[in-house]
Amino acid sequence: MVGYIIYGRGSFNQLDEIIMPYRSDEKPMIFLVDHFFQNKPLVTRIPLRGRDKILFADVTYEPKTSQVDNFARELKEEFGSISGIVGIGGGSTMDLAKAISLMMTNVGSSADYQGWDLVKQPGVYKVGIPTLSGTGAEVSRTCVLTGPTKKLGMNSDFTPFDQIILDPEVTANAPENQRFYTGMDCYIHCIESLNGTYLNEFSKSYGEKALELCRKVFVERNEWNDESDDQLMMASYAGGMSIAYSQVGIAHAISYGLSYLLGTKHGIGNCIVFDKLEEFYPEGVREFKYMVQKNKIDVPQKITGGLTDEQFDTMINVSLGMKPLWENALGKDWEKIMTRARLRNLYEQL
Amino acid sequence: MVGYIIYGRGSFNQLDEIIMPYRSDEKPMIFLVDHFFQNKPLVTRIPLRGRDKILFADVTYEPKTSQVDNFARELKEEFGSISGIVGIGGGSTMDLAKAISLMMTNVGSSADYQGWDLVKQPGVYKVGIPTLSGTGAEVSRTCVLTGPTKKLGMNSDFTPFDQIILDPEVTANAPENQRFYTGMDCYIHCIESLNGTYLNEFSKSYGEKALELCRKVFVERNEWNDESDDQLMMASYAGGMSIAYSQVGIAHAISYGLSYLLGTKHGIGNCIVFDKLEEFYPEGVREFKYMVQKNKIDVPQKITGGLTDEQFDTMINVSLGMKPLWENALGKDWEKIMTRARLRNLYEQL
Repeated sequence: MVGYIIYGRGSFNQLDEIIMPYRSDEKPMIFLVDHFFQNKPLVTRIPLRGRDKILFADVTYEPKTSQVDNFARELKEEFGSISGIVGIGGGSTMDLAKAISLMMTNVGSSADYQGWDLVKQPGVYKVGIPTLSGTGAEVSRTCVLTGPTKKLGMNSDFTPFDQIILDPEVTANAPENQRFYTGMDCYIHCIESLNGTYLNEFSKSYGEKALELCRKVFVERNEWNDESDDQLMMASYAGGMSIAYSQVGIAHAISYGLSYLLGTKHGIGNCIVFDKLEEFYPEGVREFKYMVQKNKIDVPQKITGGLTDEQFDTMINVSLGMKPLWENALGKDWEKIMTRARLRNLYEQL
Repeated sequence: MVGYIIYGRGSFNQLDEIIMPYRSDEKPMIFLVDHFFQNKPLVTRIPLRGRDKILFADVTYEPKTSQVDNFARELKEEFGSISGIVGIGGGSTMDLAKAISLMMTNVGSSADYQGWDLVKQPGVYKVGIPTLSGTGAEVSRTCVLTGPTKKLGMNSDFTPFDQIILDPEVTANAPENQRFYTGMDCYIHCIESLNGTYLNEFSKSYGEKALELCRKVFVERNEWNDESDDQLMMASYAGGMSIAYSQVGIAHAISYGLSYLLGTKHGIGNCIVFDKLEEFYPEGVREFKYMVQKNKIDVPQKITGGLTDEQFDTMINVSLGMKPLWENALGKDWEKIMTRARLRNLYEQL
């Protein structure tokens, strides 16, 4: 679990005070900021001291192990070691910050640690400040990375942030489409978790609350306001907690293939896939389509047109490798249900 | 926050494996068990190794600072230091275990640390396994103790458990009255939190979910079953999270006076008080009375009959000392609203 959680409007202003006890000697604090905020006012509010440094993360594509390794190597070359890293941005920035923290203290490449409980050393102190709500990356024990052979997170007890600051104010003014796609990541988490075979009362309670909050934001309310930011931030947190104790399902398993091959961002990728999953999640997909329409969002179509058999095979291999997701969705006998042919057919519809 | 949380039926069986990495040298693990379990089968399932010891906690009355100090002194005399402490029981046992953990490493008396952020050293490794659901003590950053001059917790960042094991199976077969009173602690947390001025979306989300689960258990269902245990355990956790980010209110402020003077246990004390608070929490108290009736529970009446003026003054002083609770319930001007005379009148009704 994340050790310390602050929730509240304006809590970003406490950042200097919060990280102060974790500054050691001359070692700098590193602020990894989503490149979206370059030249935006938020950057001027970062409490720089001494040799502190702001690094902008290019999150045009999903985070890569090579990107993590480069950041960590450059930080080691410049500073030797650092006091900590503060990630400020969406889910990709959260995951990059977590991964870089771990790679400041663990040897080799981050690709060596893609899997479960392979990380052996705690990372440096790490703080997450989400500026987009929905991924749940702020509370998860993973950081999803695209590596040379797979798209898989560094899942470990050392991966969660030490501290998160949940300030709905910093999520205001996010681009509408992006905000919707990322919010839907949470909605889809909930549907997958609540319809999964791994469900227990813990993940159910979190999943139901997150779903209710998503509905308040995207179904019931007619225009975006401060309360939407408050509620979607809480939905993201609760949705993340729900899947931490259960698992996601088919939309995530299929969209991992898309992002591995095409670099499709996670939020929009999930929307593209979920849109076609009515046979698996009938009520959820109907409500999703209603939210798309109500919020006047475009869900891209036909993005797999023209791909080769080999490319389809790559996506299918990545997707079928996500065994726990399929098992959660379809039960122990999932391999009999989701054959390669059936999955190919699904990919062709995207 | 609690570092590690396990939720699930049968998870008690993982205790040996969970605590293994925290055993060091020859230092024993101490199991502090609610005296209710003396000669009960649960005790035989405790994974004793080496010099490990089971201590039974007499929780007939609310935990006292002297009780904590005695436990800690005896453990130091017998073992020097210990690997950790595992609390198994209701809220009192949870609070005792947390306090003893802290007093193994902090000098002086636990009474020196009643307040906010006075504890300076982390305690020894501590695990909580609640066997009664409702108090939220399993997730709180306090451990409420009755000391020589006040009833107040050791509120600190070092107070929460390192690990909790939420196994609804171990709450089965709790005595019905006790289970109800403790469950109502959670219900009252929620009403006080949701009607408080400190509310934000974080505590609101947790409070609403906990309230919904309490209603499933005590209002909607007609007989107790496994799902009741599952849901009440989750309600307790969520209710505890809700007040961690807001505050309780009038019932708690008044019942603290009762337990300080009369040793009234927290759960039943809250019920005795809440029963008379219809003017402050009209809907909550009406629903509470319905649950009392439906579940065929006796709420004691006239327990303050025959007390002296001096005794009433003692209760009033303890109660009015709980400033954050009153401010949460009645706002900044609470002292104008809750006069000594009005509070005396409320105590006389109990």
